[in-house]
Amino acid sequence: MTLIDGNHIAQQIREELTEQVATIKEKGGKIPHLAAILVGNNPASEAYVRNKVKDCEKIGYGSTLVRFDTDVTEEELLAKVEEINQNDDIDGLIVQLPLPDHIAPEKVTFTIRPEKDVDGFHPTNVGRMAKGLPAYIAATPFGILQLLERYKIETAGKHCVVIGRSDIVGTPMSILMSRKAYPGNCTVTICHSRTKNMPDMTRQADILIAAIGQAGFVTADMVKEGAVVIDVGINRVDDASRKSGYALVGDVNFEEVAEKCSFITPVPGGVGPMTRAGLLYNTMLAAKKKIYEF
Amino acid sequence: MTLIDGNHIAQQIREELTEQVATIKEKGGKIPHLAAILVGNNPASEAYVRNKVKDCEKIGYGSTLVRFDTDVTEEELLAKVEEINQNDDIDGLIVQLPLPDHIAPEKVTFTIRPEKDVDGFHPTNVGRMAKGLPAYIAATPFGILQLLERYKIETAGKHCVVIGRSDIVGTPMSILMSRKAYPGNCTVTICHSRTKNMPDMTRQADILIAAIGQAGFVTADMVKEGAVVIDVGINRVDDASRKSGYALVGDVNFEEVAEKCSFITPVPGGVGPMTRAGLLYNTMLAAKKKIYEF
Repeated sequence: MTLIDGNHIAQQIREELTEQVATIKEKGGKIPHLAAILVGNNPASEAYVRNKVKDCEKIGYGSTLVRFDTDVTEEELLAKVEEINQNDDIDGLIVQLPLPDHIAPEKVTFTIRPEKDVDGFHPTNVGRMAKGLPAYIAATPFGILQLLERYKIETAGKHCVVIGRSDIVGTPMSILMSRKAYPGNCTVTICHSRTKNMPDMTRQADILIAAIGQAGFVTADMVKEGAVVIDVGINRVDDASRKSGYALVGDVNFEEVAEKCSFITPVPGGVGPMTRAGLLYNTMLAAKKKIYEF
Repeated sequence: MTLIDGNHIAQQIREELTEQVATIKEKGGKIPHLAAILVGNNPASEAYVRNKVKDCEKIGYGSTLVRFDTDVTEEELLAKVEEINQNDDIDGLIVQLPLPDHIAPEKVTFTIRPEKDVDGFHPTNVGRMAKGLPAYIAATPFGILQLLERYKIETAGKHCVVIGRSDIVGTPMSILMSRKAYPGNCTVTICHSRTKNMPDMTRQADILIAAIGQAGFVTADMVKEGAVVIDVGINRVDDASRKSGYALVGDVNFEEVAEKCSFITPVPGGVGPMTRAGLLYNTMLAAKKKIYEF
């Protein structure tokens, strides 16, 4: 069994991007620049945005953090998005969610120009991805593809079973794994809360992607011997033995499943660290105008 | 076994739309108006566009046919698309494909405002569909959903197997059948040319959607007793007994499969007639501004 090391791969990607920044500087090109908008002071959101900005600084990107108080109007926020849309120095723009109740989050994220939507949440990017066109792939699907690719896991003709149909993980993964590409070319089955006989489905998987958000949902009897298991879940469970009082666990019962697998991602340290790398990767694509060539 | 009658359902939809036009007229509202752009004089394209315009006239829609010679420049064509984008009287716009080689078809169709993209081909519509948001559904997937719905076929918790991963049928159908809606809530498997052990997959299907473009691909041994079979294929095969010298057949070997099914669509007369109804349906949605409310 090979443990897939997301921290290692994420670090590798950051190093590659750092080298690319150096090359751009040498050639006098455009250094990637990410802008993040944060509304209010939700501690989790603060931490996420701070880390994203820090990640940019570490690899030599420019970054801009725009903050608004909770009472910002939708109009003010949209005006700022439009301003950044028009700012040629800024390549990528993310708006940290959640937003206060008086602001429609879709209205805001859909206002971001698809060319700058490095989160890959805009319908235009999702649609381009579904049509097999160049697109910003959202951070979690991006991370999973990279892990499969960098561990040279064969995918063509394999049966990939995805558990979960969320629009940020399950649905895009099912599209990506079936497309004519590597990683991809899988027969893909998507399962969810309405699926009957789930174990009969998951036991068919050569590649099993669990993204259902239930701690330890995937047990050993649900997994075929030799399967590749990608665990997207990050669930808090009580753990009195820890100072914090909780532990983070995945959607897969790691102890019992790991020994049946050919490859498995741990939680934490598997898919999780890849997501921050995904944002940096997309921002580089944006700066190089690799996705929207017309 | 119930034979699904696409001609009947398509006629039903046209009648409903005709009534809606009457109601709109009574209330002095906006009559739906479809514009079609045709470049060159490919006989098949001529026939398609003529039929679409005729369909509009029959149910009381306005219609505009814009014709260009084959030597139209990309700039001229794009300028016309932009002009129609800005014309408030025109609700829906389609550009008949194929286009001459010197014009990039994606550049043209992506220039159509998503709000007027009643073909449902623009990435923004595909992405909205994938995200579970209101969207114009392309004509063939629309037709299949309508057939399932109007024949009251249960879908929740069923296993739907889709053969084919094209971006106009297979991929959108796999997304639509897995979403949290009716028709939908299926466990969905998407199979294609790289799928191994195809019959093992298709035999699991409660609902089998064949869209692979190979005459008679689905044989009786690939179908579970009692399955619902939707045949999207329209393939020409030689038939000396016919004046034309050919017959149109589906992706399903109808004779041997029909007797195992609970429901099946014939070819012709199943999914085919539904596609023209889909365009009319979307044009009504466009006129009523039902999809893009902001």
